[in-house]
Amino acid sequence: MKLKRKKASIIVIGNEILSGKTLDTNSNYIASKLQEKGIICKEITVIPDNENSIIEKINQFRKNNDYVFTSGGIGPTHDDITSNSISKALNIPFTINSLAKKLIENHYSDEDLTPARLKMAYMPKGAILIDNPVSVAPGFNIKNIYVFPGVPKILHIMIDEFFKRIESKNVFYKKTVSTTLSEGVVGEFISQIQKKFHELDIGSYPYFKKNSFGVSIVITGDKKTQVNDSSLEIYQYFKENNGSPRLF
Amino acid sequence: MKLKRKKASIIVIGNEILSGKTLDTNSNYIASKLQEKGIICKEITVIPDNENSIIEKINQFRKNNDYVFTSGGIGPTHDDITSNSISKALNIPFTINSLAKKLIENHYSDEDLTPARLKMAYMPKGAILIDNPVSVAPGFNIKNIYVFPGVPKILHIMIDEFFKRIESKNVFYKKTVSTTLSEGVVGEFISQIQKKFHELDIGSYPYFKKNSFGVSIVITGDKKTQVNDSSLEIYQYFKENNGSPRLF
Repeated sequence: MKLKRKKASIIVIGNEILSGKTLDTNSNYIASKLQEKGIICKEITVIPDNENSIIEKINQFRKNNDYVFTSGGIGPTHDDITSNSISKALNIPFTINSLAKKLIENHYSDEDLTPARLKMAYMPKGAILIDNPVSVAPGFNIKNIYVFPGVPKILHIMIDEFFKRIESKNVFYKKTVSTTLSEGVVGEFISQIQKKFHELDIGSYPYFKKNSFGVSIVITGDKKTQVNDSSLEIYQYFKENNGSPRLF
Repeated sequence: MKLKRKKASIIVIGNEILSGKTLDTNSNYIASKLQEKGIICKEITVIPDNENSIIEKINQFRKNNDYVFTSGGIGPTHDDITSNSISKALNIPFTINSLAKKLIENHYSDEDLTPARLKMAYMPKGAILIDNPVSVAPGFNIKNIYVFPGVPKILHIMIDEFFKRIESKNVFYKKTVSTTLSEGVVGEFISQIQKKFHELDIGSYPYFKKNSFGVSIVITGDKKTQVNDSSLEIYQYFKENNGSPRLF
């Protein structure tokens, strides 16, 4: 029987990603953490700073996931509309969070406490703050939605802190076997191994280095013995075919 | 009146992205090209190597886009199921493409022409090939769906070639004004400018460099005069507030 794992999806919000101006690395950071904790990442989506897009995606994702992470759109400017759009999606009043307000007030002098900065204290009513040790303006959690900023440096620190509190009881077992043989050569054998170990997730990833190329087979699964056995079979096959295997 | 622009969305297919193993850079590459051509990128999604996920997303995206790009899952191994899944989504027979078969046969010696490699010649019936000058196995176009491989080096060359044939008559006008003032300080002013120039897309992006931080305001739109006028107003405001503006 397969383990019943928690499921998560990630919504990256920002025109700058869709225009190609900015390479999104936040979803990769969150996805790595989910993998470490044994949580399945079902989907990553990038959508514009557009109210209807955010509402639609939030309502679609919150039904089928244990965790919905968002990144982006919670800053002080006019195009930061994530928090308000989430309130609308959930039909929860968008109000000032007194704790968030206090944090922001404490951080800035009276002169620097602009309405734009105070805007960052507005959240869906009942939101639980997620600490931001870098620039104070917090993220938040409401229902199964976890709202983070878009600036990678800040997101990383907040995500690190956040995941310290997430259980990791069902980690994935994982082995990688790499070879200098190519995908076209090993494809059929790996396909047979996948059929034999049908409960495992076996991925085939070609690599291209400066002076060599080949393929890495990544085996992931709930069952340690199966992961180990399949990796050894693959290793053996690569060895017999002079494929200079490495297992790790 | 706003220009009626073409719309595109991108589907990245691969467990390795969702597990955090691999950072997806392909969608950023395609998004940049779309931007250059004045095509709106509506959404980017990352989904697993899973037939149902691919079918669902293809059928959802092909209705609302002029172009649907896919990246990943067209190689020779068992986890490369993109082409077959697209056939199923479109309800079009999955058959061997004689031209693709020829290309692959010509590229490999008889000994190297494995069934795994020949698998890459299978496509939805009626697919038009997209050239792959690197490793021969072609991508393809069927209806409004454009299918590319996942290996970045190969995708880049294929995308470059592909976009040479796409018209670029309605390019976006674009200006960027950066300042050493912070978002919290300029937020209200930029919000007023956005209201005044409501047809423009004005984005606010904080930056953090080694010895400085500040914000870049990116103005994009169909109308050259409006883009220029708004950028000059923003530049002037930053200057008056000792924000060391740069306009480009």
